[in-house]
Amino acid sequence: MSDLRIAVIGAGMMGADHVIRIQNRIIGAKVSAVVEPDEARANAALENAADAVWYPNVEAAIEANAMDAVLIATPGQFHEPVLLPALAAGLPILCEKPLTPDAVSSLRIVEAEIATGKKLIQVGFMRRFDKQYMELRELISNGEQGDLLGLHCAHRNPAVPDTYHNDMLIFDSVVHEIDVVRFLTDSPIKSVQVRHMKRNSLNPKGLDDPILVLLETETGVLASVEMNVSVQFGYQVKTEAVFEQGIAEIGRTAGMTRFFDSKVSVAEHVTFKTRFAEAYDAQIQRWVNAVKKGTIDGPSAWDGYLAAAAVEAGLEALHSGNEIEVDYVARPAFYN
Amino acid sequence: MSDLRIAVIGAGMMGADHVIRIQNRIIGAKVSAVVEPDEARANAALENAADAVWYPNVEAAIEANAMDAVLIATPGQFHEPVLLPALAAGLPILCEKPLTPDAVSSLRIVEAEIATGKKLIQVGFMRRFDKQYMELRELISNGEQGDLLGLHCAHRNPAVPDTYHNDMLIFDSVVHEIDVVRFLTDSPIKSVQVRHMKRNSLNPKGLDDPILVLLETETGVLASVEMNVSVQFGYQVKTEAVFEQGIAEIGRTAGMTRFFDSKVSVAEHVTFKTRFAEAYDAQIQRWVNAVKKGTIDGPSAWDGYLAAAAVEAGLEALHSGNEIEVDYVARPAFYN
Amino acid sequence: MSDLRIAVIGAGMMGADHVIRIQNRIIGAKVSAVVEPDEARANAALENAADAVWYPNVEAAIEANAMDAVLIATPGQFHEPVLLPALAAGLPILCEKPLTPDAVSSLRIVEAEIATGKKLIQVGFMRRFDKQYMELRELISNGEQGDLLGLHCAHRNPAVPDTYHNDMLIFDSVVHEIDVVRFLTDSPIKSVQVRHMKRNSLNPKGLDDPILVLLETETGVLASVEMNVSVQFGYQVKTEAVFEQGIAEIGRTAGMTRFFDSKVSVAEHVTFKTRFAEAYDAQIQRWVNAVKKGTIDGPSAWDGYLAAAAVEAGLEALHSGNEIEVDYVARPAFYN
Amino acid sequence: MSDLRIAVIGAGMMGADHVIRIQNRIIGAKVSAVVEPDEARANAALENAADAVWYPNVEAAIEANAMDAVLIATPGQFHEPVLLPALAAGLPILCEKPLTPDAVSSLRIVEAEIATGKKLIQVGFMRRFDKQYMELRELISNGEQGDLLGLHCAHRNPAVPDTYHNDMLIFDSVVHEIDVVRFLTDSPIKSVQVRHMKRNSLNPKGLDDPILVLLETETGVLASVEMNVSVQFGYQVKTEAVFEQGIAEIGRTAGMTRFFDSKVSVAEHVTFKTRFAEAYDAQIQRWVNAVKKGTIDGPSAWDGYLAAAAVEAGLEALHSGNEIEVDYVARPAFYN
Repeated sequence: MSDLRIAVIGAGMMGADHVIRIQNRIIGAKVSAVVEPDEARANAALENAADAVWYPNVEAAIEANAMDAVLIATPGQFHEPVLLPALAAGLPILCEKPLTPDAVSSLRIVEAEIATGKKLIQVGFMRRFDKQYMELRELISNGEQGDLLGLHCAHRNPAVPDTYHNDMLIFDSVVHEIDVVRFLTDSPIKSVQVRHMKRNSLNPKGLDDPILVLLETETGVLASVEMNVSVQFGYQVKTEAVFEQGIAEIGRTAGMTRFFDSKVSVAEHVTFKTRFAEAYDAQIQRWVNAVKKGTIDGPSAWDGYLAAAAVEAGLEALHSGNEIEVDYVARPAFYN
Repeated sequence: MSDLRIAVIGAGMMGADHVIRIQNRIIGAKVSAVVEPDEARANAALENAADAVWYPNVEAAIEANAMDAVLIATPGQFHEPVLLPALAAGLPILCEKPLTPDAVSSLRIVEAEIATGKKLIQVGFMRRFDKQYMELRELISNGEQGDLLGLHCAHRNPAVPDTYHNDMLIFDSVVHEIDVVRFLTDSPIKSVQVRHMKRNSLNPKGLDDPILVLLETETGVLASVEMNVSVQFGYQVKTEAVFEQGIAEIGRTAGMTRFFDSKVSVAEHVTFKTRFAEAYDAQIQRWVNAVKKGTIDGPSAWDGYLAAAAVEAGLEALHSGNEIEVDYVARPAFYN
Repeated sequence: MSDLRIAVIGAGMMGADHVIRIQNRIIGAKVSAVVEPDEARANAALENAADAVWYPNVEAAIEANAMDAVLIATPGQFHEPVLLPALAAGLPILCEKPLTPDAVSSLRIVEAEIATGKKLIQVGFMRRFDKQYMELRELISNGEQGDLLGLHCAHRNPAVPDTYHNDMLIFDSVVHEIDVVRFLTDSPIKSVQVRHMKRNSLNPKGLDDPILVLLETETGVLASVEMNVSVQFGYQVKTEAVFEQGIAEIGRTAGMTRFFDSKVSVAEHVTFKTRFAEAYDAQIQRWVNAVKKGTIDGPSAWDGYLAAAAVEAGLEALHSGNEIEVDYVARPAFYN
Repeated sequence: MSDLRIAVIGAGMMGADHVIRIQNRIIGAKVSAVVEPDEARANAALENAADAVWYPNVEAAIEANAMDAVLIATPGQFHEPVLLPALAAGLPILCEKPLTPDAVSSLRIVEAEIATGKKLIQVGFMRRFDKQYMELRELISNGEQGDLLGLHCAHRNPAVPDTYHNDMLIFDSVVHEIDVVRFLTDSPIKSVQVRHMKRNSLNPKGLDDPILVLLETETGVLASVEMNVSVQFGYQVKTEAVFEQGIAEIGRTAGMTRFFDSKVSVAEHVTFKTRFAEAYDAQIQRWVNAVKKGTIDGPSAWDGYLAAAAVEAGLEALHSGNEIEVDYVARPAFYN
């Protein structure tokens, strides 16, 4: 079978990374187009994809029949204007998280997808492709330790730029845990509460971090999330699952152990790029494989919508200090 | 110096353990009296303390000048009737937690102690004598990783008897974390909130466990506590401290590692008796040493009172579902 | 660039795995031929490589110009009859270990390769492509912990079939450590000694396992190797490096930690296929990439020869009980 | 029962430590005498034992009936002149390792003890009182993982003074593993071989360290010992036991885990004093308890003799490079 021709939309950090990934590590696909309004940025990306063509916008690429599928890597607020024409053109889409920034627009996408009659959209929650998350999900579903009762998640970044602000704690960072809780529990999130830890004085001005976010699922599982974007230590994402019979934990760092300088130590990741390198590769490879069979193999537009709804509740919880119910529509039969 | 003569009050499981401990592992002390209304139980304890004498109540022991100091190991509701005559007799006291079951009665004890003009009471929060808790406290106070911002605690028991009920989650179990948070932060607890995880179906009937308790200190440190009394795995008490610069964790099990049966494993404790064996010994030894110098060396009656006040707020939080402010009086100068 | 056409020689377990690997996980290559005298076995492999053609012997495949490169996955005693015609045809070769079973035949291969004037052979010591071995080698070469003084290796298999015999301990199993010691130290092995541990009564009849093999390099580094093929536990390969300043260890298992059944445990590998899955993939991918540039990217025929020489000394050490010097020719300038 | 009166012989580092230990942490014993030719050194020790009396030699202390038991903490070459009069006086003795520096003199002590008709001597191999060694021994003897086949030991010191020389590697350091192997296997050591790792350039001049010592027991268990006295990292003593079914490891450091500075780390011990603090206490306490019952509770003079015999073989192995058989007499029925 010939290679799947992928148009990468957006040639920023994530998009440029995806171009390199597809060209070098993904079987059965190649980058055929880079869609990016900034020509210089596009050209930089094209250096890693010799046969790809630059288009300033998605409509031009569609018009030119430049691709078999679309990978959207622009910032979230620019997703909808790409999603709608791509859906209209019947193109399979891998859309970086979030699907869109809010529930109303996400629901429009869901409805547009339903209108095509075909699941075309996969959302880029790459953690679902991480081996340890998959292993934990398997443990939950096989019931070997009984029912899942709760989760303790920690999401820690070494530091953030000054442009990072409080709302981003929810829509940019906690959104990963929002989807992971769904992935692990197969249940929508029912409510969100936010509590503040003591503020880290090393934060950028105006940033009130770390926070403790409490996500409760419709099935009664309570997840606590330490969201901590300037921990000054490393990049660490871990989850402790509380079962009826015991606990399971994922996310401890692995690798060479050094006995040096009076310490026994293992190096921690310092960026998500290494922590989730294999998950990103697996996500794209499985998507490529699925697209060739006319399907998706990962979180759907419906998952993207539910995440957007929980993010909205999370923002209100952050601003109000209250426990906020998540407001979402009934699941369309299309996604059963 | 001659041995400190200790009267152990209450010869139940804890009291009987303390008799064995004092006779076999504590320097400079001996059990001189066992105060216990149940003669059979008293006699069982006396088998491990040949020279000790049985008294049916504390007044009789005081009358007989049977001891230099008192160790109270009865259930909490029976502490006050022992504490008051012992204070009146000017006897140094090590009182198992809780000081008393509620803030009002604890405050009475505080006032009675102040009236003696001397710190006579130490409360048996043994975790303060655990090496790892001490090590974590030292890391907090030396500031090497910056300010402490939050704590994640887990307190897990294998199972509980059918007599264990919801309120005990707070006054019997979380009370340890309530004191530990004080020990680590040197700040009173300002508020308590309780959230429920999914109920463990293996619980005794009527028990809604596990819960997630949120303790916030006056200094803004937020502590989350997973209180989980029927985890069906082992006895595990651990704390993760979130600093401005990185994290520190205590409570992982240690010991022989076995590579067997396709697993790499380490045995977990199954009871607090082994987990805190050394802490109990250290607590009593340091108390004995301090008593001989006319002082205490551990949590005071004031610490006991603050714990009782936080427990009251915790019970209200458990019953109401709300975040409850802790109500407590100003610290008397006596305890500065 | 078009895909590299690879002929897989031998369609046994290893060969069949390589067919699946190349077809599904390697970029820029495809299996164009399966060379295998057993037609049924060949056909089974061809089911995973639709466009590949069966040849009963390598000469027929060469005659048909069926490939751009050769991957040899037959048992070691059949390597030379494939290597020589492939070299004569100027084909790049990835040869599973061992290069050949003995030093004399390996030297013939080395000479045949030199005669072609080009490094065509890479030997399949896949551990060199394992992340942790690479990380350890980097630590050794950057000198951060001073000079390397010694190594402790353990190579443990759950069990072996009854056909496994004592000499295989050296030529089939320890051969991996022989190459790894070379990889880590960049020095030929000077001598080999074998000591016996107590025999495992669960061994197949006649097998005297485990053994402790001592490899000393020309540079004075002493490596101890526990070779243990029926440890009844899991598949574990680990190395502890002793430096002038401290120690480093690789090979501990990683992954989800379970707190269950009174134990804290992590699952161990049970087969080399999962333990070195990524290393095998990386080995082939890097070889494919290198071949396209006309070079190799891994251990050479010279490395294969040195391994064969050390294996010969190892067999003599096993049989005699003595410390045996390794006999090898001077390195040809071709391999500098 | 009144306190056991102990004469501590030798008030150097070890003796002074034992004085503090007995006075502060041991139940049922006190230091009644310090025997030390150097009066200043004796007085320093006496500051921690108010009621003890100084004697310049053991004969004077015996003459004065100054003690019920003797703890010998002088250097090994001075043990015999204390052991013989103490035996003659019928005094129970805890003798720091080694019993004596060589097998001939150790055998004289054994014979002298037999002549008294009573086991009076316990030798201070404190590792036998370490919890993890005891746990490993229990695993060996309960057979849960099948027979023990081999051991891998590492004995690492941060650094040694310039006075430390090659022979001390054997008689001062490896002697601990020599006894531990006996403790774990319940078998005499049959042979010793010594191999050199690359020399650590940070060693004191003339010191050829680290070495790999191979101890084989009469029962066929092979123990490899990395003896490494200037590892520049910490004080680490660990043992990996190879069973018919799997492995067990003891000696990994435990305690608070720090996530800091891009590393996950645990602090290592830097001295045997902290690593074996509890073992020293347990050794003395159990010895005191046993002495009061007229017995010993630890390694006997026979164990001391066997260690001396293996040390002699070890020294010859170090000097000759050969595998040396240990020469020892048959076990007297007295020690059965």
